[in-house]
Amino acid sequence: MSILLLNQNNTQLREQIEFALAEVEGLFAEELLSDLSCVNTLVTHVEQYRGKMLRPTLVLVSGMASAAGGDAAGLSDAHRIVATVVELVHMATLVHDDVLDEAEIRRRGCTVNELTGNEAAVMLGDYLISHSYHLCSSLDRPAINHLIADATNTVCEGELLQLANRNNWGLDEQTYFEIIRRKTASLCGTCCRVAALLHEAPSEVGDYLYNYGEKLGIAYQIVDDVLDLVGTEKTVGKTLGRDVQKGKLTLPLIHYLNHSTDSQRQQLLQIMNGSTSPAGSSTRGAELLVVEQMDAVRDLLAPSDSVRYANDLAASLVKQAKASVASLPDTGCRKLMLDMADAVLTRQF
Amino acid sequence: MSILLLNQNNTQLREQIEFALAEVEGLFAEELLSDLSCVNTLVTHVEQYRGKMLRPTLVLVSGMASAAGGDAAGLSDAHRIVATVVELVHMATLVHDDVLDEAEIRRRGCTVNELTGNEAAVMLGDYLISHSYHLCSSLDRPAINHLIADATNTVCEGELLQLANRNNWGLDEQTYFEIIRRKTASLCGTCCRVAALLHEAPSEVGDYLYNYGEKLGIAYQIVDDVLDLVGTEKTVGKTLGRDVQKGKLTLPLIHYLNHSTDSQRQQLLQIMNGSTSPAGSSTRGAELLVVEQMDAVRDLLAPSDSVRYANDLAASLVKQAKASVASLPDTGCRKLMLDMADAVLTRQF
Repeated sequence: MSILLLNQNNTQLREQIEFALAEVEGLFAEELLSDLSCVNTLVTHVEQYRGKMLRPTLVLVSGMASAAGGDAAGLSDAHRIVATVVELVHMATLVHDDVLDEAEIRRRGCTVNELTGNEAAVMLGDYLISHSYHLCSSLDRPAINHLIADATNTVCEGELLQLANRNNWGLDEQTYFEIIRRKTASLCGTCCRVAALLHEAPSEVGDYLYNYGEKLGIAYQIVDDVLDLVGTEKTVGKTLGRDVQKGKLTLPLIHYLNHSTDSQRQQLLQIMNGSTSPAGSSTRGAELLVVEQMDAVRDLLAPSDSVRYANDLAASLVKQAKASVASLPDTGCRKLMLDMADAVLTRQF
Repeated sequence: MSILLLNQNNTQLREQIEFALAEVEGLFAEELLSDLSCVNTLVTHVEQYRGKMLRPTLVLVSGMASAAGGDAAGLSDAHRIVATVVELVHMATLVHDDVLDEAEIRRRGCTVNELTGNEAAVMLGDYLISHSYHLCSSLDRPAINHLIADATNTVCEGELLQLANRNNWGLDEQTYFEIIRRKTASLCGTCCRVAALLHEAPSEVGDYLYNYGEKLGIAYQIVDDVLDLVGTEKTVGKTLGRDVQKGKLTLPLIHYLNHSTDSQRQQLLQIMNGSTSPAGSSTRGAELLVVEQMDAVRDLLAPSDSVRYANDLAASLVKQAKASVASLPDTGCRKLMLDMADAVLTRQF
């Protein structure tokens, strides 16, 4: 569901954005259409990843907020194209995130179906990336190509830094923030800056908007990480506990390791170590083990204030994001951006 | 070794190109340099893939052949940048080709080391792709960005078409050629066309050069496929038999299946089927099996003319590639392009 649908204010603006998002979906499908039916079949598979359209929404609201009228009249075809480009980039990262490593495949057994095999996932992701740059170059504005490619460079660095710190139980907060700033927040910030650049808004407007997107992106990732740890699958709508399974320390765990007793720390590390080593051969057995491990992690965290610490930090970043757009003209669209930032915390979208 | 080193003619031109290729290597390293040491460590891993620099060489010789003087004076910084861009693209595809599917991982056992794990390979490949577009956008020429992205779209389609035809023992020649035209030849053709476009050569020069690169690319891939089947690792310098192991029918096998007796066809299919199903748990056992299977395939093909058929087709494509540059000015560089095309067949580089 879109980040905007649950907000009851600004009905007209929300409708304009929903309309533009539908156009983005059309451009997305059009760009990926191939003369090869086998490619089109795989592309339909991508639809399972279609989510909240956070990044295209950031392009659209930033485009509106930085335009003279502060509404959809400020959006050009170029905004819809850039919105499609960033969604293609984001989809590619989701598809590539699904590529499994050897240890995981062994643990999960033989159930991974052919369509979602590793090689198909890699090639499909590459097809999405290639089309994102292809569509972007149709804008005939090299500066935009450069900004988007700059952001994707940074996203890849974030992913590589995260990979390099897998099973690093000494990961510090600073490195954690460096990872999520690069892998998530840089693209969010770029979405907002590019939208302003497209109608030649003053550079400080681009800076304010970049800062808004970046802070919102960091907050979004913190909340995502918290939910992966202590959310319920019914609410979040995806498999949880993946970070622990992949040996990824996130903010609540880093805080816990730094603020608990030796014995508590040892207990958590024992659980983390247990979850990242091959565990049994049957898929069903492995799934049960994940549930037990996640329950054990939650039991350990419950009496601590580590989850609240992470949520507080996210809230403070949302405040910073909102402060950053305070200098923009006081339009309905600016109000919408403030609501969007708040929605990251309640995560009802 | 570079495609040019074994050619004893045109010493001065070859030296100019070798010099430009060294500059390309410098740009390659410069573009990938990160402020994160973990990224730089992984990037050094890419050097193991550094090969014949076929694609950058195509950019450079085409840039020289389509310039007024027919030598390195016709090369601009933009040529060296595009040469680096296409090498980045090619390296990304090599790194992503190394991502293994479940069946293979199971067959190969647990020997895949951490550095070359699937997830690192995917992210490293993405980093290379992203930087290729990033560097390309620095040219400030959207038409070039568009042509390169068009080519990478087509490369991905070729890879996906190949994947869709894995274990398809009824694959016909037409589809085989469609696969290699897309996955290999389109980028080679684009290398040549872009080089001409960079100094505004007449569009028919771009067309001639594209055709040269495309035909050379198809021939190159046919020879590559033949060597994977009947070459020796010592000569070719890489693990062979991978196509059979991956259930990929290539030209000699397609020809054999269409021109042999029922009993011969059954024998080949039995071997092919045997090689693509999980085979034993130990790595050593699996390796021995591959050698035995490849020997069996070679024994079956030896009395047939299927390998010669494929080589003859490659030779005819090289002729077409050479004919395509016959209309260019008669310079030493054109002569070099003819030699390069011939070198694809002898494959002594």
